[in-house]
Amino acid sequence: MTTNTLNNEYLLSLGLDDTQLFLDANAITPYLKDEKMKKNRKICASLEAAIIASGLKDGMTISFHHSFRGGDKAVNLVVDKLAEMGYKNLTLASSSLTDCHAPIVGHIKNGVVSKIYTSGLRGELAEAISAGVLEEPVHIHSHGGRVHLINTGVIKIDVAFIGVPCCDEFGNANGFKGKSRCGSLGYARTDADNANHVILLTEELVGFPNSPATICQDQVDSIVVVDEIGNASQIGGGSTRLTSNPRELLIAKQAASVIEHSGYFKDNFSIQTGSGGASLAVTRFLEDKMVRDGITASFGLGGITATMVDLHEKGLIKKLIDVQCFDSVAAESLGRNPNHVEITANQYANPSSKGAVVDRLDIVVLSALEIDTNFNVNVITGSDGVLRGASGGHCDAAAGASLSIIVAPLVRGRIPTLVHNVTNIVTPGQSIDVLVTDHGIAVNPLRPEIAERLTQAGLPVMSIDDLQARAQLLTGKPKAIEFTDRIVGYIHYRDGSIIDVIKQVK
Amino acid sequence: MTTNTLNNEYLLSLGLDDTQLFLDANAITPYLKDEKMKKNRKICASLEAAIIASGLKDGMTISFHHSFRGGDKAVNLVVDKLAEMGYKNLTLASSSLTDCHAPIVGHIKNGVVSKIYTSGLRGELAEAISAGVLEEPVHIHSHGGRVHLINTGVIKIDVAFIGVPCCDEFGNANGFKGKSRCGSLGYARTDADNANHVILLTEELVGFPNSPATICQDQVDSIVVVDEIGNASQIGGGSTRLTSNPRELLIAKQAASVIEHSGYFKDNFSIQTGSGGASLAVTRFLEDKMVRDGITASFGLGGITATMVDLHEKGLIKKLIDVQCFDSVAAESLGRNPNHVEITANQYANPSSKGAVVDRLDIVVLSALEIDTNFNVNVITGSDGVLRGASGGHCDAAAGASLSIIVAPLVRGRIPTLVHNVTNIVTPGQSIDVLVTDHGIAVNPLRPEIAERLTQAGLPVMSIDDLQARAQLLTGKPKAIEFTDRIVGYIHYRDGSIIDVIKQVK
Repeated sequence: MTTNTLNNEYLLSLGLDDTQLFLDANAITPYLKDEKMKKNRKICASLEAAIIASGLKDGMTISFHHSFRGGDKAVNLVVDKLAEMGYKNLTLASSSLTDCHAPIVGHIKNGVVSKIYTSGLRGELAEAISAGVLEEPVHIHSHGGRVHLINTGVIKIDVAFIGVPCCDEFGNANGFKGKSRCGSLGYARTDADNANHVILLTEELVGFPNSPATICQDQVDSIVVVDEIGNASQIGGGSTRLTSNPRELLIAKQAASVIEHSGYFKDNFSIQTGSGGASLAVTRFLEDKMVRDGITASFGLGGITATMVDLHEKGLIKKLIDVQCFDSVAAESLGRNPNHVEITANQYANPSSKGAVVDRLDIVVLSALEIDTNFNVNVITGSDGVLRGASGGHCDAAAGASLSIIVAPLVRGRIPTLVHNVTNIVTPGQSIDVLVTDHGIAVNPLRPEIAERLTQAGLPVMSIDDLQARAQLLTGKPKAIEFTDRIVGYIHYRDGSIIDVIKQVK
Repeated sequence: MTTNTLNNEYLLSLGLDDTQLFLDANAITPYLKDEKMKKNRKICASLEAAIIASGLKDGMTISFHHSFRGGDKAVNLVVDKLAEMGYKNLTLASSSLTDCHAPIVGHIKNGVVSKIYTSGLRGELAEAISAGVLEEPVHIHSHGGRVHLINTGVIKIDVAFIGVPCCDEFGNANGFKGKSRCGSLGYARTDADNANHVILLTEELVGFPNSPATICQDQVDSIVVVDEIGNASQIGGGSTRLTSNPRELLIAKQAASVIEHSGYFKDNFSIQTGSGGASLAVTRFLEDKMVRDGITASFGLGGITATMVDLHEKGLIKKLIDVQCFDSVAAESLGRNPNHVEITANQYANPSSKGAVVDRLDIVVLSALEIDTNFNVNVITGSDGVLRGASGGHCDAAAGASLSIIVAPLVRGRIPTLVHNVTNIVTPGQSIDVLVTDHGIAVNPLRPEIAERLTQAGLPVMSIDDLQARAQLLTGKPKAIEFTDRIVGYIHYRDGSIIDVIKQVK
């Protein structure tokens, strides 16, 4: 009889419940008795084994991050496997989806996926959903709004599948080491923070402890080594490329002038540039003005790009705050520059977090597929009403920033960007201050002081209605889209409310 | 009528509930409408204002971290203020308490504090609790066990008060910048992760964004600037000092030899040294052996000390994993060395976390106030039965490590360290492998292979009973302590169970 047993008898005699009593040093840590299990217990032999171990059941919710953007291989890999294993009726909650996820159309048709939450949709999957392939309308959310939906229990992640370039045997991972480097894992971290069960998909196992860790060992249940998790060369494609389009550059240059004269171009200002050629190019034109005036930015927020990194390394932007890297230069910088700081989606933009960085933004420059004369912005559907964009951080940054600028060409081919009423609202006009086009600048009547400053600086400010009339002069009155009564998508505002519905086009 | 309103009418016509409808861009973020509130809304004019804003009520639980150790000023500052404000019946859940918290005795007597959770107790407060000043017995827990108690809802932190040397206006903070640098905020992070409301007490406000952030903006509700939060020069005092005591050095040297011949001294081994002079000194004696054999450690865990930092900077320990800095050298290193990595208490030692670093420990060297012939260890009460120690990470690291070594002098003055039965059990004997004293070495019979290796290496291995007999020969048979029937403390094992009770001494 050991002292321990004696001791328990004594404790019982004091009237303590036997469920409260010490039983064994490893009562809840049986793996510590086995030298191999101590260290290797999370490694699964196959994706199938990890899925079985997760307890995933039909009807549950699976999540993914979109940091590999167009190069993502995780969603298709996992959903193909789930289909093969016979799963049905799953909710797919990816922080975003894009062209490369076309195979999901088949998995909607065969009943594997029955509900989708995402920030964006493009390509075949977007077209199929627009055409009504999903019985329940797709839920579109912003990046901050997704965290709000998770925190309020609307999205309950049962199993998060998180693709990483490398991790150690306990699951400590970042996105800037290894072969396929996506950079910031800001969206993935939110899933790791909130999912009931977390499966890491990694291309490589590295020595413990892998540091710094964005995804931490105490968030990870199991680890599967896979051949390829993402094509990092495609992170910087599509809407995050550096533009050489002369019209986009012209608009970007004009937006830089708007910033210069807006009243917000002061030492220690902060700035975010959203995806889209003209938007991302604005920073390039700000550089000269910053050098000339001896102004440095306190932080650049994003969606970080090569241009932002360049300004940071020149000392013009003190810190880069990074929820997602828009190109490989940014991904490399995150691993190299100590003042290039990774943040989570909650820290970036969640309106119900205790503090989002967008709250502290002075200036944001954003794109639009459409904008209307009330300054409402559509970044989710084309003017044909078909899904082809992403909510992203658009309404989050617009709500937070003191100066929200939309950059867009006034017309695209024969299609006006500025219209009477946008096909769908993603960001409400009250959050938008200035529209910069290649044909002139319009300032929201809610901000007369900005209009006055820009006019005094000699910038071509005109009323939004005059600018809209000009667009219509160029394109003619666009033919109204004909919709069926069927709703194919809900657009959630960042606070979870429904700001618009997307209807099926006839 | 704006487009938004039109839109809502349309949405309602589709049958959506009006609670689901978009109302206003800032419906849940009213502070974004105010330029000052956007950025400064967390700063409180006084501690009292912050407490009022927290919603703290009588009977609730307040928490603190102990990273300033003997130099902590937060607990007394806050509890004095709470007493002044008339609060009663609070539960004080500090990650640990020490000599400097003597004023709490008065706040127990006046009814402000009625229940205490802590890892340790020393000085006047310990003596008063041993003498029965608290009606409900004090709850002693380990560092990992505290997180387990929090995660299982036993400790529910209503308001966490977190002292930091500096933070920005949103509450991003670390412990290695500013004036009073405590280094790692690993314990504080657990409170920030779990408290309903978090108040930062800071000596200084710095520009946004402060990075890297251990305590993050999305965890912090309010910020109070105070004159002094801690005396950093006292972090390295007491049980974490570097010893020059010849007997402690002798034991440390012997322990290093035990490690060398234990079978665990291999390239990439990992090690933790607990508080206490001999324990912390072991690393110094390992250095020569590591250089001689070309062996480097994969990581050192702790409780990081100047010695660990020295070995890290010499390339002998690849990474330092740090839940708490034991001296100012370690605190400075955390801010300077990229492979000196901060972790939370959950990542350090929680037995119910998804992965604790102690699980991966090869070797731990720990102290003891008493150890018995079943290898049970007491680190909480003296041989007079009075509280004067700390559970700390003792049972956590002992459970996790493949080789757990206790270093202790065989006798202290006329008091034996090695006894038949410890006064109180903190760490069960089954987790302890080797006892190293200044009079010989004993190996737990559960580990005959280790005994064999040490004997073959010519080390003075003897049975624990023979070693105990030797102690008794030196001190005589100690007089048994006489206890009353009253329980003054519960000792929780890391899994939350009660492994022992502390009785009041007659």
